[in-house]
Amino acid sequence: MFLQIIDILGTIAFAISGVLVALNKKLDPFGVFIIAFVTAVGGGTLRDVLIGQVPVFWMKNLTFMYVIAGATIFAVIFRNKLDKLRRSLFLFDTIGIGLYTVVGIEKGILADLHPIICIALGTMSACFGGVIRDILCNEIPVIFRKEIYATACIVGGIIFFMLEALTNLSTDILFLIVGLVVIAVRLAAVIFKISLPTLYKG
Amino acid sequence: MFLQIIDILGTIAFAISGVLVALNKKLDPFGVFIIAFVTAVGGGTLRDVLIGQVPVFWMKNLTFMYVIAGATIFAVIFRNKLDKLRRSLFLFDTIGIGLYTVVGIEKGILADLHPIICIALGTMSACFGGVIRDILCNEIPVIFRKEIYATACIVGGIIFFMLEALTNLSTDILFLIVGLVVIAVRLAAVIFKISLPTLYKG
Amino acid sequence: MFLQIIDILGTIAFAISGVLVALNKKLDPFGVFIIAFVTAVGGGTLRDVLIGQVPVFWMKNLTFMYVIAGATIFAVIFRNKLDKLRRSLFLFDTIGIGLYTVVGIEKGILADLHPIICIALGTMSACFGGVIRDILCNEIPVIFRKEIYATACIVGGIIFFMLEALTNLSTDILFLIVGLVVIAVRLAAVIFKISLPTLYKG
Repeated sequence: MFLQIIDILGTIAFAISGVLVALNKKLDPFGVFIIAFVTAVGGGTLRDVLIGQVPVFWMKNLTFMYVIAGATIFAVIFRNKLDKLRRSLFLFDTIGIGLYTVVGIEKGILADLHPIICIALGTMSACFGGVIRDILCNEIPVIFRKEIYATACIVGGIIFFMLEALTNLSTDILFLIVGLVVIAVRLAAVIFKISLPTLYKG
Repeated sequence: MFLQIIDILGTIAFAISGVLVALNKKLDPFGVFIIAFVTAVGGGTLRDVLIGQVPVFWMKNLTFMYVIAGATIFAVIFRNKLDKLRRSLFLFDTIGIGLYTVVGIEKGILADLHPIICIALGTMSACFGGVIRDILCNEIPVIFRKEIYATACIVGGIIFFMLEALTNLSTDILFLIVGLVVIAVRLAAVIFKISLPTLYKG
Repeated sequence: MFLQIIDILGTIAFAISGVLVALNKKLDPFGVFIIAFVTAVGGGTLRDVLIGQVPVFWMKNLTFMYVIAGATIFAVIFRNKLDKLRRSLFLFDTIGIGLYTVVGIEKGILADLHPIICIALGTMSACFGGVIRDILCNEIPVIFRKEIYATACIVGGIIFFMLEALTNLSTDILFLIVGLVVIAVRLAAVIFKISLPTLYKG
């Protein structure tokens, strides 16, 4: 129940971020909805397809479809006031990537995949919706350029498998810790303006 | 037999629309063929992958490959005269999306998915070939911006499930009606210059 | 063993070509790695998804992940000296597409698909990593525009099935010949500056 609420909050935050990008590109209502949808579920969809969990998750649980439709309508109507919600949205989004990372790792473990692949799946679940959004909007994906986003997911994933090897904590506790780590790394990065070291001089 | 002829006409129209975009981007012969191919089968391929119907349809029925190759060669040779065929092409294309919508809905029903997902699959089958074409050609997908295209498919899909719930019509008749509805909505939208309400002022 | 070494050399060459494009686009370290990864395994991943071989190959064999990570770090550090390696890299890349073509054809045969589809799968394995790389970097894929690349794979594939029908050569020998043909066509095209006939005048 608690997890589901977080999942829905994360989906809302992702969908709204999609709406904002789509409005910026002057898309029509259909385009706006598709971008919101893809931002929210694109990463998990890619994950499910690559590991063979089909039909993909949002086809089997309509909650996502409804939540995204609602969030899209809300965001379109109140777009001029979303600025006031920016902090809440950022928080939901951050909680969302924490949760999505955990879901991806869990699916990888269930599919009996190597820890490194599980971490990749967690990162993909959390980040690739945004990548597909940016491609559809004809931009180079923002997470390839400047935001600490994927890094938070990767750090969380590594800590999961380290703690799993070294401690006797239950998987549920581990997932909770990982989610919090992802959130903490992302928050710290934004607050202290940390980014990945640049590869370019000057 | 009748359905197969329509399917082939739709595939031809989609492939030719791909060729025209690709020529516009000055692609080489290989690029032109790939864009034609992707425009014609991309939507159905995405649908098959997401619901797990693999190998995807055009790998099991080579007709598509042959028809697209033929249409590509035809379109490249007669490209300067295609203008005269514009009306026929538009008609084929419109019939094509009607049919592709039906095929997508049918596949969704066979996979035991919820009506909303079936409608999404129908729309995807009809529209996402064009989306992938535009992404490969480095454009924001045109159906996200101005054309009533997806909307026609969605309306058709809704009418299918409404009629199914309210009447005793056979599925074949329903599919025929849906195809005609999609075609009618699209034609009406183009003739009366209807588009989705804009989200932007001035 | 021999095949595996070639496979690794090809993967390295593909990954490095990804790094160079990514650095050119000023991506951050995470972006550079993802582009390297996608360039190296994207074609095979698409192939595996379309024929239903999931989880996809690099999830079941971590060698690819390690090799690409190593190649990325190497390429980032020595990027200013890569110019001196250009010939070696071109050679690896060319050997890589020869091998990837063979792997794709083989997977198609194992999945019991028609020779034309097998040739398409071989070409996809060899070429679509670069296509996905270019899309992620917001470019029209280079192989749709000017390079003889896919054509070499297609020629190799056709020769495979011709020889298979006309001779008694073992599959291993055929694959060796095909790999060499792909390499020869590509080398010849580059050395003699052959490209596909243009569809455009003046």
